Amino acid sequence: MESGRLTKGCVTLPAESGKEDIVLELAKRCGADVIRDSDGTVLSQEILDFGFDIYSTLCIVRADQDWPGNHPTHLPQQYLMSHREVSGGGELKIEILREFYDEKYRINEDDDPKQWWEVIDRTKGEVVASDSWEYADGWVVIDDTEHFHEYTVNFLVYQTWDSVSMYNHLINDWQCEKTVSLNPFLPEVYQHLMGYFQQWLEKHPSTTVVRFTTFAFMFMLINDSESKQKICDWMGYCEAVSPAAILEFERIRGYRLRSEDFVDMGRFNPTSCPPSQRYLDWIDFIHGFVVRFAKDLVSLCHQAGKKAAMFWGDHWIGLEPYSPLFQQIGMDIHIGACNDGTGLRRISDAPGAQIKEIRLYPYFFPDTFKEGGNPTEESMQGWIKIRRALIRKPIDRIGWGGYLSLAYKFPDFIDHMEYLSNQFREILERTQKKESYKAPIKVAVLDCWGKRRAWLSHFGVDIKFMAGHDDTTVCSWTDTLECLAGLPVNVDFMSFQDIIDTPDYLDGIDVIINDGQAGSSWSGGDNWKKPQLLAEVRKFVYGGGGFIGVCEPSACEYQGRFFQLADILGVQKETGKSLNVTEATGCKIKNHFITEDLRAPLNTGLKKSYVFAAEKNTQILDYNDSHIHLAVNEKGQGRSVFLSGLPFSFDNSRLLQRAIFWVCGQENNLKRWFASHPDTDVAYYRDAGCYLAANNSAESVKTIIFDDEGRESQISLEAYELKWKGI
Amino acid sequence: MESGRLTKGCVTLPAESGKEDIVLELAKRCGADVIRDSDGTVLSQEILDFGFDIYSTLCIVRADQDWPGNHPTHLPQQYLMSHREVSGGGELKIEILREFYDEKYRINEDDDPKQWWEVIDRTKGEVVASDSWEYADGWVVIDDTEHFHEYTVNFLVYQTWDSVSMYNHLINDWQCEKTVSLNPFLPEVYQHLMGYFQQWLEKHPSTTVVRFTTFAFMFMLINDSESKQKICDWMGYCEAVSPAAILEFERIRGYRLRSEDFVDMGRFNPTSCPPSQRYLDWIDFIHGFVVRFAKDLVSLCHQAGKKAAMFWGDHWIGLEPYSPLFQQIGMDIHIGACNDGTGLRRISDAPGAQIKEIRLYPYFFPDTFKEGGNPTEESMQGWIKIRRALIRKPIDRIGWGGYLSLAYKFPDFIDHMEYLSNQFREILERTQKKESYKAPIKVAVLDCWGKRRAWLSHFGVDIKFMAGHDDTTVCSWTDTLECLAGLPVNVDFMSFQDIIDTPDYLDGIDVIINDGQAGSSWSGGDNWKKPQLLAEVRKFVYGGGGFIGVCEPSACEYQGRFFQLADILGVQKETGKSLNVTEATGCKIKNHFITEDLRAPLNTGLKKSYVFAAEKNTQILDYNDSHIHLAVNEKGQGRSVFLSGLPFSFDNSRLLQRAIFWVCGQENNLKRWFASHPDTDVAYYRDAGCYLAANNSAESVKTIIFDDEGRESQISLEAYELKWKGI
Repeated sequence: MESGRLTKGCVTLPAESGKEDIVLELAKRCGADVIRDSDGTVLSQEILDFGFDIYSTLCIVRADQDWPGNHPTHLPQQYLMSHREVSGGGELKIEILREFYDEKYRINEDDDPKQWWEVIDRTKGEVVASDSWEYADGWVVIDDTEHFHEYTVNFLVYQTWDSVSMYNHLINDWQCEKTVSLNPFLPEVYQHLMGYFQQWLEKHPSTTVVRFTTFAFMFMLINDSESKQKICDWMGYCEAVSPAAILEFERIRGYRLRSEDFVDMGRFNPTSCPPSQRYLDWIDFIHGFVVRFAKDLVSLCHQAGKKAAMFWGDHWIGLEPYSPLFQQIGMDIHIGACNDGTGLRRISDAPGAQIKEIRLYPYFFPDTFKEGGNPTEESMQGWIKIRRALIRKPIDRIGWGGYLSLAYKFPDFIDHMEYLSNQFREILERTQKKESYKAPIKVAVLDCWGKRRAWLSHFGVDIKFMAGHDDTTVCSWTDTLECLAGLPVNVDFMSFQDIIDTPDYLDGIDVIINDGQAGSSWSGGDNWKKPQLLAEVRKFVYGGGGFIGVCEPSACEYQGRFFQLADILGVQKETGKSLNVTEATGCKIKNHFITEDLRAPLNTGLKKSYVFAAEKNTQILDYNDSHIHLAVNEKGQGRSVFLSGLPFSFDNSRLLQRAIFWVCGQENNLKRWFASHPDTDVAYYRDAGCYLAANNSAESVKTIIFDDEGRESQISLEAYELKWKGI
Repeated sequence: MESGRLTKGCVTLPAESGKEDIVLELAKRCGADVIRDSDGTVLSQEILDFGFDIYSTLCIVRADQDWPGNHPTHLPQQYLMSHREVSGGGELKIEILREFYDEKYRINEDDDPKQWWEVIDRTKGEVVASDSWEYADGWVVIDDTEHFHEYTVNFLVYQTWDSVSMYNHLINDWQCEKTVSLNPFLPEVYQHLMGYFQQWLEKHPSTTVVRFTTFAFMFMLINDSESKQKICDWMGYCEAVSPAAILEFERIRGYRLRSEDFVDMGRFNPTSCPPSQRYLDWIDFIHGFVVRFAKDLVSLCHQAGKKAAMFWGDHWIGLEPYSPLFQQIGMDIHIGACNDGTGLRRISDAPGAQIKEIRLYPYFFPDTFKEGGNPTEESMQGWIKIRRALIRKPIDRIGWGGYLSLAYKFPDFIDHMEYLSNQFREILERTQKKESYKAPIKVAVLDCWGKRRAWLSHFGVDIKFMAGHDDTTVCSWTDTLECLAGLPVNVDFMSFQDIIDTPDYLDGIDVIINDGQAGSSWSGGDNWKKPQLLAEVRKFVYGGGGFIGVCEPSACEYQGRFFQLADILGVQKETGKSLNVTEATGCKIKNHFITEDLRAPLNTGLKKSYVFAAEKNTQILDYNDSHIHLAVNEKGQGRSVFLSGLPFSFDNSRLLQRAIFWVCGQENNLKRWFASHPDTDVAYYRDAGCYLAANNSAESVKTIIFDDEGRESQISLEAYELKWKGI
């Protein structure tokens, strides 16, 4: 730490009652200015009196556990789909809750099943007429079924155990009372919660910031009969359902959503699949409600002289921080858990004047902080990714959560916390919290979600098969986005609909990236059948734009093609439809601008891409047998790059950087504020009159820095070192 | 060779003029009874006078090269699709033949383009009105096109150079005259060819058998502007097209086929994709014509006192040897090229009383018979596969083709020919040409083609990416079928339509195999959306039947599922649609009847299957990380087996054998006429009162033979040895 630098501020520490000494010592070492409680911890009066700002955690929908006992219909609801029952012909009985956790769900018998449920012949794909079945005592009996057809029932349930409480009981062995949530969409609940919160504010005079985790609805998490996770989507809107909400939606939108709109053949509209317009309408509707609910709560905070913080946590559904409506809430502080550059940019790029804070990993919990654990190593791996992105676009604060006393048992981790806190403050201070220099290149990531899901990773099928990973909510398993998060270019997100709806939407964009597996919301699925989209993207490229396709870009089976932009990309993927068509040979190229900095053979994460040249002029830069992994092409004034995948590494980030500069014809601008060694970065801060050289690796390196005008200077950096230079 | 065995017969040798000594010597050593000519070779009078039966090769449609010069419209025709031209808006010009070999094609300007061609906006997927474009001098000009849409033209061409002649000139450096074919569908051509053939018969008095190669139409083979293969399908019917045939089809079937029915978005109805009903109608129509044409030719043969043989060669289109109509032709001898067990069974299982002959590989051509070549090794590899199948279901003759003088330069190969000839004759003689014992199990392979394409391999996308393989016509790259070809079970082929059209079609079948990649004609594609198919297959399994799914069985995206029979198979494949759904854990099983003979870890040809358990009772026998490669399940009285792939090997054949016995509940019957060592086979011939033990490996082995009643006896076998025992 240089002398004269800030030694305090911008850091949030968790605290716990009975550990006052530790709290004080660590707060001093880390320069913390805020103390928070966590799920399961309480702050003592002594801590509250230390003079720190105090964040108090509150999940309003599960704060009052007295109310739900007297109001059993006020619980959150959702649709479930029964298991598929094979018919033996004639009458068929289905025990609808059989494959679900009975401690978590109670069938909603209050709202007429004939009106709200659907029985479906899944073999035919047809709804069974409602006069052909009856419900009683947990069973649906269907009159006259077809032999060896499969039938399912979509039905409504109440949630009788909150998912988070359940998780902590079953996984973390909590012994406290089980909690339930409430459904704030019901006016009676809404009013009650406002009153409850008013009282809560009065009871928490030391609290300076209410840290909401978060507001109204839990993400999708369905548990099977053995309580295990069955279906999970951290961005799913299917637990915001209730007949009241559906009726209100109908009143506003003019049409009634069906149970099948939520159940979606048992898949519940996964974020990884292209959303239907009906589902998008539902998201917008719930978003509108949550903004109103959150705004009312934040107003109460402000009236009480406190600030409001939101944690992008389990109940974040409806918030949509990238939506313009979000700003109406009046939120003061915007907090997100963060373990990499993608997570950092998700917070730092979010619009609005909120204070931005990240909650670092690992959480101080016994899973990591146990004998033999190495939390310092785990944290450092994440921090280097975060720092790469942070020096491109800053945030305001960092923090930790959990049991401080657990972390205290690892002295090297405490040293590491101090190191991170000081390094973070130094970056903020030296850069004056400004973005670093960006090349005059605007990159737009194109997918179904656009800005709604900016900086949410484009995960693929491998996520399901990662050994030891039974939690498919992980959204920080990044590739292209993680590479992109630390590059000195401007990044935006756009949806297919943006291009279709808005004339000349692509004006001002230099590079389009389309990255994802075929049929995913990221690659785009059937959107690529839309003539207007194809024409606009071709116009963009022919006019000089750059198109980077990763994995299965523009992929959908249509008119004899799989990659609809095969003409632009110069490559095509074989899916078995054109085995009789001989591939073009293409031109194999050894040396190219894009691959100049690769230190080892390109690793796109797979050996077989099944991608072949679609044109004889396609330039093939990397291949394995006949499988193409990297190819470039030119069309009109524009260019394209195809990559069969792009796992995160410093080499691959550099490759992407070079691909971006090449594809929009700005090769000559690459070496302005450029660090030669792929493990290093340089970030230039014009207003602050300085630049920063960063070593992202655990080895000491020498790197050449190219300045504004391409002048070179060599610099040596120790492991992970940052070096600052005034200009 | 034991004394007393036949030393002559059942063998066909090629001969060539000027090599009479070699012919006589080799005929004696191999015991040949038939001499044939080959493409490019002539038989001298001396050879004709030796007293052998003489096969004379004739491809009738390219026999007379005088006629086509005077009848330019009598050439074969076909549809081509122009390249895709991107519009810059307004008028668009397309040079339709630009990407095709101009020495091979001439645009058909005789039949009105407005009636026979189609211009298609491939971005919209819509046909452009015929009054919006004009054709002249090789160009189509479209009036008013949409900016950045792609357009194509489907147009008719004449073939001005026969594909086989072209291949021999360009690849084998033939210097003789280029030849063209004729279109026998035209009545004038038909009459001319009959007259020509009558004269030919008169000019060939020594010929005892006319060996047709084959009759009317060439398989699909389109060449690009550099003469390279562009599109190829050995089973494709798109070169049988002409306006006359389309009009006759319309007269009979009641509807007109469009150019797009053939062009099929540029893919030309590949055999690997599910055929449309219109394309199947076309196949039937052409089949009907070719049967009439062949029957007339064969009648002339018979009237001339000669026999007729057909070689399943380049012009085989329309013959369909598995169709009942085929028998009307009156063919005497049925010959097929053969390099493996699948090829053997394709001939030996074909219905009818024809003499069955295989043409062995390698063909005596300079590609293999060159310095450094090892034709004996290549032949032995094929022979062992052929022999495995042959001892299950015999044929009548073997033979070779090409330049005998080339083979003569490899003395070890001549020894090998003698060895094969003697071994083949011994098998025929000892077994009295009877099938060997089969377990009382009937296996039916289920795909789109059924019996039409019995014993044609189920190849997948990898075929396109095999290094050095630029010929995608290869149809002997087998997996499951090659394993199946040598197993002691009854095998049949059936189509999805068979099951749907015929009540109780599955009665009498014990095991269904569905093997292929999703969307292929082998896996079945959208057929799996048909409720009747699903109900019948479920009924079959619940009633005690066995279902073996390999690769991507029953796969199509429908009603929330990818494997439509996931309930039967107990597994599901992740394609990205259900990333949010947690897989069932299934039960991992170490020891199982099916895997008992595996000597090394199971190799299904891939590491990642993306297949997971769909039910908790699914038994997982092999997996890699979380990717399942072998799983079994039970439903009702029946069972299922899933395999992620099945490349051919002796271990995998044994695995399939065990899977078949297990899946239909006949585990107790496995060890009846069973050889314990996976590299060995036993075949029992009840009528001949003997059995045969065969060693398929290059190592000497000991194996235990289980007889009719399961009694064991040990036997030692040298490399590749056959041992016979009387009973």
